[in-house]
Amino acid sequence: MAKKKINVGMVGYGFMGRTHSNAFSQVGHFFDLPYQPVLKTICARSADKAKAFADQWGYDSSVTDWRRLVEDKSIDLIDIASPNDTHLDIALAAAAAGKMVMCEKPLGRNAAESRKMVEAVEKAGVPNMVWYNYRRVPAVTLAKQLIDEGRLGKIFHYRAKFLQDWTISKDLPQGGQGLWRLDVGVAGSGVTGDLLAHCIDTALWLNGGIDKVSGMTETFIKERHHNITGKTEKVGIDDASLFLARFDNGSLASFEATRYARGHKALYTFEINGEHASIFWDLHDLHRLQYFDHRDEGRTRGWRSVHITDGDHPYMNKWWVPGLQIGYEHTFIHQVADFLEAVSGGQSAAPTFRDALATDLVTDAVLKSARTGQWENAKG
Amino acid sequence: MAKKKINVGMVGYGFMGRTHSNAFSQVGHFFDLPYQPVLKTICARSADKAKAFADQWGYDSSVTDWRRLVEDKSIDLIDIASPNDTHLDIALAAAAAGKMVMCEKPLGRNAAESRKMVEAVEKAGVPNMVWYNYRRVPAVTLAKQLIDEGRLGKIFHYRAKFLQDWTISKDLPQGGQGLWRLDVGVAGSGVTGDLLAHCIDTALWLNGGIDKVSGMTETFIKERHHNITGKTEKVGIDDASLFLARFDNGSLASFEATRYARGHKALYTFEINGEHASIFWDLHDLHRLQYFDHRDEGRTRGWRSVHITDGDHPYMNKWWVPGLQIGYEHTFIHQVADFLEAVSGGQSAAPTFRDALATDLVTDAVLKSARTGQWENAKG
Amino acid sequence: MAKKKINVGMVGYGFMGRTHSNAFSQVGHFFDLPYQPVLKTICARSADKAKAFADQWGYDSSVTDWRRLVEDKSIDLIDIASPNDTHLDIALAAAAAGKMVMCEKPLGRNAAESRKMVEAVEKAGVPNMVWYNYRRVPAVTLAKQLIDEGRLGKIFHYRAKFLQDWTISKDLPQGGQGLWRLDVGVAGSGVTGDLLAHCIDTALWLNGGIDKVSGMTETFIKERHHNITGKTEKVGIDDASLFLARFDNGSLASFEATRYARGHKALYTFEINGEHASIFWDLHDLHRLQYFDHRDEGRTRGWRSVHITDGDHPYMNKWWVPGLQIGYEHTFIHQVADFLEAVSGGQSAAPTFRDALATDLVTDAVLKSARTGQWENAKG
Amino acid sequence: MAKKKINVGMVGYGFMGRTHSNAFSQVGHFFDLPYQPVLKTICARSADKAKAFADQWGYDSSVTDWRRLVEDKSIDLIDIASPNDTHLDIALAAAAAGKMVMCEKPLGRNAAESRKMVEAVEKAGVPNMVWYNYRRVPAVTLAKQLIDEGRLGKIFHYRAKFLQDWTISKDLPQGGQGLWRLDVGVAGSGVTGDLLAHCIDTALWLNGGIDKVSGMTETFIKERHHNITGKTEKVGIDDASLFLARFDNGSLASFEATRYARGHKALYTFEINGEHASIFWDLHDLHRLQYFDHRDEGRTRGWRSVHITDGDHPYMNKWWVPGLQIGYEHTFIHQVADFLEAVSGGQSAAPTFRDALATDLVTDAVLKSARTGQWENAKG
Repeated sequence: MAKKKINVGMVGYGFMGRTHSNAFSQVGHFFDLPYQPVLKTICARSADKAKAFADQWGYDSSVTDWRRLVEDKSIDLIDIASPNDTHLDIALAAAAAGKMVMCEKPLGRNAAESRKMVEAVEKAGVPNMVWYNYRRVPAVTLAKQLIDEGRLGKIFHYRAKFLQDWTISKDLPQGGQGLWRLDVGVAGSGVTGDLLAHCIDTALWLNGGIDKVSGMTETFIKERHHNITGKTEKVGIDDASLFLARFDNGSLASFEATRYARGHKALYTFEINGEHASIFWDLHDLHRLQYFDHRDEGRTRGWRSVHITDGDHPYMNKWWVPGLQIGYEHTFIHQVADFLEAVSGGQSAAPTFRDALATDLVTDAVLKSARTGQWENAKG
Repeated sequence: MAKKKINVGMVGYGFMGRTHSNAFSQVGHFFDLPYQPVLKTICARSADKAKAFADQWGYDSSVTDWRRLVEDKSIDLIDIASPNDTHLDIALAAAAAGKMVMCEKPLGRNAAESRKMVEAVEKAGVPNMVWYNYRRVPAVTLAKQLIDEGRLGKIFHYRAKFLQDWTISKDLPQGGQGLWRLDVGVAGSGVTGDLLAHCIDTALWLNGGIDKVSGMTETFIKERHHNITGKTEKVGIDDASLFLARFDNGSLASFEATRYARGHKALYTFEINGEHASIFWDLHDLHRLQYFDHRDEGRTRGWRSVHITDGDHPYMNKWWVPGLQIGYEHTFIHQVADFLEAVSGGQSAAPTFRDALATDLVTDAVLKSARTGQWENAKG
Repeated sequence: MAKKKINVGMVGYGFMGRTHSNAFSQVGHFFDLPYQPVLKTICARSADKAKAFADQWGYDSSVTDWRRLVEDKSIDLIDIASPNDTHLDIALAAAAAGKMVMCEKPLGRNAAESRKMVEAVEKAGVPNMVWYNYRRVPAVTLAKQLIDEGRLGKIFHYRAKFLQDWTISKDLPQGGQGLWRLDVGVAGSGVTGDLLAHCIDTALWLNGGIDKVSGMTETFIKERHHNITGKTEKVGIDDASLFLARFDNGSLASFEATRYARGHKALYTFEINGEHASIFWDLHDLHRLQYFDHRDEGRTRGWRSVHITDGDHPYMNKWWVPGLQIGYEHTFIHQVADFLEAVSGGQSAAPTFRDALATDLVTDAVLKSARTGQWENAKG
Repeated sequence: MAKKKINVGMVGYGFMGRTHSNAFSQVGHFFDLPYQPVLKTICARSADKAKAFADQWGYDSSVTDWRRLVEDKSIDLIDIASPNDTHLDIALAAAAAGKMVMCEKPLGRNAAESRKMVEAVEKAGVPNMVWYNYRRVPAVTLAKQLIDEGRLGKIFHYRAKFLQDWTISKDLPQGGQGLWRLDVGVAGSGVTGDLLAHCIDTALWLNGGIDKVSGMTETFIKERHHNITGKTEKVGIDDASLFLARFDNGSLASFEATRYARGHKALYTFEINGEHASIFWDLHDLHRLQYFDHRDEGRTRGWRSVHITDGDHPYMNKWWVPGLQIGYEHTFIHQVADFLEAVSGGQSAAPTFRDALATDLVTDAVLKSARTGQWENAKG
């Protein structure tokens, strides 16, 4: 039984272009799905780089203008893995052309942009998804299952942080290849949209809506050399962003993201404390889930370090044998698998553009609160 | 050479009465000091319990009214280990009588009470100290040394939390023996004064003054049976308390305390991220310090788990041999040792009543901010 | 510049057939190499399964007799991923046909078989390699670098173990698909060849030759149902295997492998203690290396948990960004990359068949010692 | 109700003299017992040091000849905390005088000495105990309870090690104050009697008798300056000692002790793997027990890190509140408490001299096996 093919047009060949290409390339080796993605065309501004990337990943062709992808009738799905300031235009055009649309996070540079994108895909009725890949870490998916089964009981606390340390040096420039995340015009914001957005997406998924927030941001290095203009320019992004929050379910929360925490490269952690049980997870050891169940016998009660490599853990029956861990890129493969499964049933898999808008409403509220010094509504 | 004796009058025979008595009893076995404390008189409201406690710990005598201690010329030092609502009166009387005064934390139920106590001991010129014992965990003292030596460089972030889970049950009453911490009239506040105060004391010591705070509190269980009145009464304390802060040195901070975090009994942790290095510490493994130094060679750079049991670690040359850990109560012994050492030079050892007032100003600001929804000044 | 193709003929479609196929499939996406492997033909005894596997992984064709691969002039490399009892014949034929040969470990069911295979490939002068993949865990490769640089100084101790728990049930049968590792006729031995062999290969690589061993084995479940014969039969494999050893460099060692250690799925660990430094590694957290350097300043000296995800860690500049871990299957990709790199220079990459023979000589000595109760020479 | 006093005569004022004195001094503060030990007389060869120690710990008097303790009618219990070569004579004399006898481990320098001591105390019918203090680490006592309740099921594996690194330097002399453990004439053996003995005592207690052993020892530094003779002399002790063993219950075991493992100060660990559950413990974090129960639900099954600070953990209801850890010296306090409790019922508490002889028979067998290269019987 031949599988139906889905032709993919990819925009962007950087870090995210690689993780997405790998996901499309690998998914069929491990998941038995009704659709087989085909790497059709890669788009990048540099023709040479686009060609080299196509050769490396097996794309049929390469182009330098994303409009070619939109116009190409053979392309079924457009995947946006280019910098944040390109998301809006591509998504609108892709939706208008009736393509399925996948978009790297954050959806827009702000909620206003995201809202337009949501309207576009919903009006067009095309399957859509945003790459908040950490939902598909097996340990995180397991956390979701445990929470949904009521294992934790009433939730009291949620706390998350995403700590990095790669921009501490004053000598790091802003802007251009690999550094557009420091350029506010391109990125929209700093760690709020880049890192906190991941924390918020997971939190909304696991713990429901956020009612209000009190935020604080800081830009530690005020000026940096700009690679595009060639001048020293004011830094517009936030280097650190913290907020307190209250969820709709009454739980209290604390969130933090920074690129100024020595010793941490991508330390995304969350903990959730419920009446009966608690869960902790950590991206630096993504293949483990820490679980504490108060209903265990008292003498032997303790935090369980669950090695998420068994066949009864989410997605893990697709991989190796118990004890053998998977890594970061597998989360993207899982996301493609779920997307293709959903598409075969005429659905979008979460997080949809609409789900991602909810995250952007929270990040907008955090940034606003940091300016106003007030608690702000987190639902726009 | 005979040591000079310091006669101690102790108020309170509960948890803290035990830790303090043990400290006075043990200090001479391990530290070579100019003074030898003598357990002279224990005061407790119940004559039987006071007598039993005196027998157990070797006090010469017991009384039921703390005023007897103040009047007793033979007593050199009054140590207040009774509930928070008794601190003010005892401290004022003890200072007026020219006694040295040690007081369990928090100093007062609020900064107003604390301020009176500071004035009293300073006016009397008597040595004074507040039992913020966690400063004397060897790992924490080492952290202080490393920071003061500039090993971390400019500080960007401070985060601390104190998590417990012992009041989650609705059936737990408030008030009375062992439960006065849930009675706002006695305690002054909930976790803010009980747990956050520890976090704040350490933070002020390690990272300097706090400028302003944005707080949030919650009382999850609104009514509880009251052991004294025998009725179901509104709960006045805060069950959870979180705040964001900005330190005078520009660093950003996040603090949290709760008694609703399943799986944690006394998980006090702090992390401090500097330009060059970071430190993490955790009360559940108090004999370890986690240290990351970015100046280490790249390939082998990592968080160091330092087992704080060597002779060159603070206080540890007084104890056993490398590899053998000490525990919780030793922090009180260290504090007495430092106090007696300071007294022999006519000094008070930190944290003095004045130091403890600074903490109470922060906790008052947190509680106020939680009410107003505004950022509040943290220095009174 | 087009890459030269290497056509691969694969024997076996089980667990190892998958890891090897994935390695050949992925290596070109991440490594810039002179050769590009092509998945040409898969061989499996079942025509249907061979066909399905070919479809899933993109093989051009499938066959049911491995002799077809040997006869096929277009095939450059034969990779043996089938059960142990097939290694000898296939390797001999492949070498005789002038093919490059890769073989899953252990090389033979015993050193006598392995010796024939070494002679065959060396006589034929064909590139050859055995899939002791754990050498290519980045953390393990880093350990090798640190040792070779003399960072540890004189070595005193080596200890390794490989713990599993999947055969504890009496109801597990032996023999047949997925269970041939319990059938001594097919496997050659139990955990000695399956698990200890990994420990020994790494040890010989990191710490040099082993002089002599004292071993002990046990078969906890004496009889099991046999899937092929349909009868309850005596179990011929060892369930657990331990040995003490002395290395040529004078260091003392302890090794252990078992499938009866509850709570461990694939806990391969090793520790090496030198005069100046020690190293510990653990397969359950394969992306970390624990490193202790006694030359660090005393107060802050501790075991460093090195998160092996930085660009200056072995192989890691091919993958994602710092902080993002890779997993188990990547070790096979690294091995293919090194093999292709070596082949382009006319070399074999280690571990060659000859290297793997050294391991089999040790495992043979362990099994012999377990029988004789004597220390046995470990070099054949 | 006044407690009955037990007058203690202590021999030795070194490391062990301090831990024992502290135990006698502290036990009454925390345990409610029928007997109250009194620190009566300390014996040390130096009159000045004996006097200073008496002052520091509150002994009534000091002597320089242990025979004075034996002759003193007021002394009820003689505690031997002096070097190993003094144990035999003191124990024999104390027993003959009808005193209770406690002795620091190992009991004798070899099993022959120990056997005489066992005969002496049993003939005299006096309560006796050997200070294998690690049995009274609450986590270890809990392990014993769990095993005795059958929680682990049939035992397959036991492994223990005791790793230190304090004698790696060639410049460390042997003999004399603080270094008698390196002098074979005084100590009897090296790490075998000093460290392995602890591992063996615990193992015999937890897992029953050992049938036979295969041992290997090494003396890495062959000659050292001798502090007593003033000359460079051959080192007679073993620096490292490893052995394989088979227990009476059929389980397989691996033991190791060394003073040449960089990065470990007193890393005593043991792990026991049973059919249903496994236990791991580690002296560097003595307040934790790692417990894995295969009967837990699959998805959330993992090693539980049990923080042994709750009231339902052994001994812990005597100390502080949940979450607050105790340390090394508390194990001695627990041992005195159990001893006094047993004495009040006319019993000896384990480990008795006879229990300790069983350990010495194993250590003798290990040393013999290391010489003969044969498996040796471990029961004398």
